[in-house]
Amino acid sequence: MNKLNDIFPYLYKLENPQNCSAIVRTADAVGIKKIYITEDKPFVINEKISKGSHQWVEIEIIRNPFEFIENMKKKNFKIVSTSLDEKSIDYRLYDYNQKTIIIFGNESNGVDKEILEISDYLIKIPQYGKVQSLNVSVAFGVIFYWIDYVKRGVKKWK
Amino acid sequence: MNKLNDIFPYLYKLENPQNCSAIVRTADAVGIKKIYITEDKPFVINEKISKGSHQWVEIEIIRNPFEFIENMKKKNFKIVSTSLDEKSIDYRLYDYNQKTIIIFGNESNGVDKEILEISDYLIKIPQYGKVQSLNVSVAFGVIFYWIDYVKRGVKKWK
Repeated sequence: MNKLNDIFPYLYKLENPQNCSAIVRTADAVGIKKIYITEDKPFVINEKISKGSHQWVEIEIIRNPFEFIENMKKKNFKIVSTSLDEKSIDYRLYDYNQKTIIIFGNESNGVDKEILEISDYLIKIPQYGKVQSLNVSVAFGVIFYWIDYVKRGVKKWK
Repeated sequence: MNKLNDIFPYLYKLENPQNCSAIVRTADAVGIKKIYITEDKPFVINEKISKGSHQWVEIEIIRNPFEFIENMKKKNFKIVSTSLDEKSIDYRLYDYNQKTIIIFGNESNGVDKEILEISDYLIKIPQYGKVQSLNVSVAFGVIFYWIDYVKRGVKKWK
């Protein structure tokens, strides 16, 4: 096993269970150990989409986001929110060799302003098109496979 | 506009219109000029998922895949198929500074064997989990944002 041990995603009030399930599947593929989730409304991970991968990726439901973030900061985690904010930096500029929580926000409203304000960094994926925003599960894959590159390098299979 | 002018995706017999629509949306975001599609069965791009982005990304339906590939080879395009095949190389090892068609195959069966055989390269995304395969729209995002990195570098917004 080659799991990512010090970088964890935090899914913050996603409204579409399909997105959440697709993310759990990607998380399994890219070797994420644990996902933190604050539900928008309670939902059940979609078995079909996650293809059973939620059995292999640990999921912790967070009831109090502010307490959670406070606790993670005390454990020296950096809090990084994905946001289309002007101040956000290219996701490839952040130094992933730090203990990090990466927050992915609601499909319509993004990460709440109060959470952005207590984040250490804001990151975004450059977009060149007419459509405002990538699907959150695609953004998740793009960012975590960049982390795969940074942390593990390019695979040379025999 | 900062479109990719010499790398084009070719969606080969995807069975889920949602995936196809999500890909069109990602294609718009990452600045793809044109998508080639061979339909599994005829479908209409899902308006809701693609969020109108198919109006900005050119789509060409390919009726004869072999003729299309032959023609693109004559125009000096390399044919690169995504495949979980043992012989596939890490997608980050391919040299994207070549005119290239990247083929994404059917969700269940991948790219047909006959197409793999006439491909110049096979690429894959490393996976560390128990689940066999990433969702094709996530894989599409991962590969094309790697191409964004190779071709355009890291964005330094002001």
